[in-house]
Amino acid sequence: MSTGNDKSLFQADSLRSFCEGIFISCGMVPEDASIVADGLVQSNLRGVDSHGVMRVGIYAKRLKMGLVNPRPEVKIVRESAATLLVDGDNGMGQVVGVRALELGLDKVKQSGGVYVGVRRSNHYGAGAHYVKRAVEQDVVAFAYSNAPPTMAPWGGVDPYVGTNPYAFGVPAGGYPPIILDMATSIVARGKIILAAERGESIPEGWAIDKHGNQTTDAQEALQGSVLPFGGPKGYALSLMIDIMAGALTGAGFGPRVNSLYDNFEEPQNVGAFFQLIDISQFANPAAFKANIDRMIEEIKSSRRAPGTEEIFLPGEIEYRTEEQRLASGIPVEATTVAELREVGRTCGVDIADFVSQA
Amino acid sequence: MSTGNDKSLFQADSLRSFCEGIFISCGMVPEDASIVADGLVQSNLRGVDSHGVMRVGIYAKRLKMGLVNPRPEVKIVRESAATLLVDGDNGMGQVVGVRALELGLDKVKQSGGVYVGVRRSNHYGAGAHYVKRAVEQDVVAFAYSNAPPTMAPWGGVDPYVGTNPYAFGVPAGGYPPIILDMATSIVARGKIILAAERGESIPEGWAIDKHGNQTTDAQEALQGSVLPFGGPKGYALSLMIDIMAGALTGAGFGPRVNSLYDNFEEPQNVGAFFQLIDISQFANPAAFKANIDRMIEEIKSSRRAPGTEEIFLPGEIEYRTEEQRLASGIPVEATTVAELREVGRTCGVDIADFVSQA
Repeated sequence: MSTGNDKSLFQADSLRSFCEGIFISCGMVPEDASIVADGLVQSNLRGVDSHGVMRVGIYAKRLKMGLVNPRPEVKIVRESAATLLVDGDNGMGQVVGVRALELGLDKVKQSGGVYVGVRRSNHYGAGAHYVKRAVEQDVVAFAYSNAPPTMAPWGGVDPYVGTNPYAFGVPAGGYPPIILDMATSIVARGKIILAAERGESIPEGWAIDKHGNQTTDAQEALQGSVLPFGGPKGYALSLMIDIMAGALTGAGFGPRVNSLYDNFEEPQNVGAFFQLIDISQFANPAAFKANIDRMIEEIKSSRRAPGTEEIFLPGEIEYRTEEQRLASGIPVEATTVAELREVGRTCGVDIADFVSQA
Repeated sequence: MSTGNDKSLFQADSLRSFCEGIFISCGMVPEDASIVADGLVQSNLRGVDSHGVMRVGIYAKRLKMGLVNPRPEVKIVRESAATLLVDGDNGMGQVVGVRALELGLDKVKQSGGVYVGVRRSNHYGAGAHYVKRAVEQDVVAFAYSNAPPTMAPWGGVDPYVGTNPYAFGVPAGGYPPIILDMATSIVARGKIILAAERGESIPEGWAIDKHGNQTTDAQEALQGSVLPFGGPKGYALSLMIDIMAGALTGAGFGPRVNSLYDNFEEPQNVGAFFQLIDISQFANPAAFKANIDRMIEEIKSSRRAPGTEEIFLPGEIEYRTEEQRLASGIPVEATTVAELREVGRTCGVDIADFVSQA
């Protein structure tokens, strides 16, 4: 069961079942518990462990404290030929997100294109999860979600926007789809938290301290603000997402999006925004996907810079990790396993029943 | 007429009239000539001189060579409730872009949201120009256009995608709209051309040479590839735009987008893609714009980092430049004036009739 460096191995199905058990014990119906569990395990499979089962503890805590509604009535509050505004009823972000996306995917086959706004939701996990569902139906998709403030306006000091993630997906023909899923910060805040815990310094350019000066001290960075990717341009994209997912939908924006980890008084009021486009309204889907294949081949076979062993498309590394982890299991850090064990204990689900014996 | 540093001053209206005269002489109808002239002068007004009247020469040359159709029949080739696919008939990019946008803006008031794809077009100027028109109608807008290859895939050496510009616009209430218009490269290629002409070096991180190594030599950079903003993330956005504006619409993509300056055999086959969202389908427009005002005020009044005199919203500096240049005129570089004079001479339009005597 140990992988030699303090990690335990789980098969994806087992880990999913464990998470489902936790969320059902928190009051969710099995179908919804399965949506959340699937979102988390999908992230672990893709190697994006920051959005995987390490979130189970905080999700369960908020559910039990009544800060998240375990049985939301997700409903359309406004609809036009090409738009949907969805109220998440303060449900789990993945449940609200998947429901809203499915409503959009149903509609896009009639309208050709849909814009879906989501208000009163929570942390929705990895944006890749949503755009992957869309591309399976020959729909090009953009997924945005806002997040509690951790980045200062460009030139500022105090956090105002979140590390608001940007996701985009497009299907290929013979290759895996192109799946872009990126934070608008230069680095996940989790990496700074990890460095602080280990007493390590962080690279220049990652963060500023509370006075607005660049810092390599992880502790000071956590008191300050993480920096956007690409300077003012990444910041502007984060602001765009806060406007689309937050201000436009009626969710929180700026400091009105509450922290997942630090605010135990109020719901998060996170928002999301999806843009869905039916490929067949612009091109023959097979011909389009053949062109994407051609693009992929041209890029993959392109001349490499010194030090580059292989050129990757967005999402390609994650796809390979998924293949590998589906085959040989998902390694989970000992600290996360310990947390899962404790959460399981309070929920009457024994993690020992789910860990791989391989 | 001289501004003291080899620049001439033009009033916006005069410069526009001069440009109209040029394009009419190239075979365009006055209405279309006016659209192109307006796009160029708008860029100069906003201080984005790289997309201003310095393009008149190359535009006129391509028109006269028959590489661009001066009297295109811009038409809808496919339509659904929420999508439009527009064929630009190889017209000037601004003419095709504005026509396609206007078709989308007509439609968005019925459907609530529209996606507009454009194929067989040309260099469309600054994306800001399009999103500014949309926000005037309480429509949130995204505008993308692809461009000839000048950036290598991340990890690669040879250019594959363009510096594909990304534009986003949203209206405010009492403040100017938020207008984001950025290249997906770290810097405009024009700045590298300028450094090469002046024999100056360029900062590290702007470009790689033809072997894929970082270079500060502007000449070597021009033989190589400009770098994306924010590394792989900016590159991924450029790829997204090539997919949406190019592959999806049926325009060129990757190396199939031809150069404005270097290919005098074929049309460019540039594509564009607009995403238009009627605010009133998601929120009360007045309340939404009040929230954007609130966001602007919170950001503007936010604590500043050392060395920052003022925090700017996307498009704010350009807005101020526009106010100032509307009042006191547009300074145009001597080299550009000389080029305009020469183009004017071949077109029977004397630039001396348009320069400001102030």
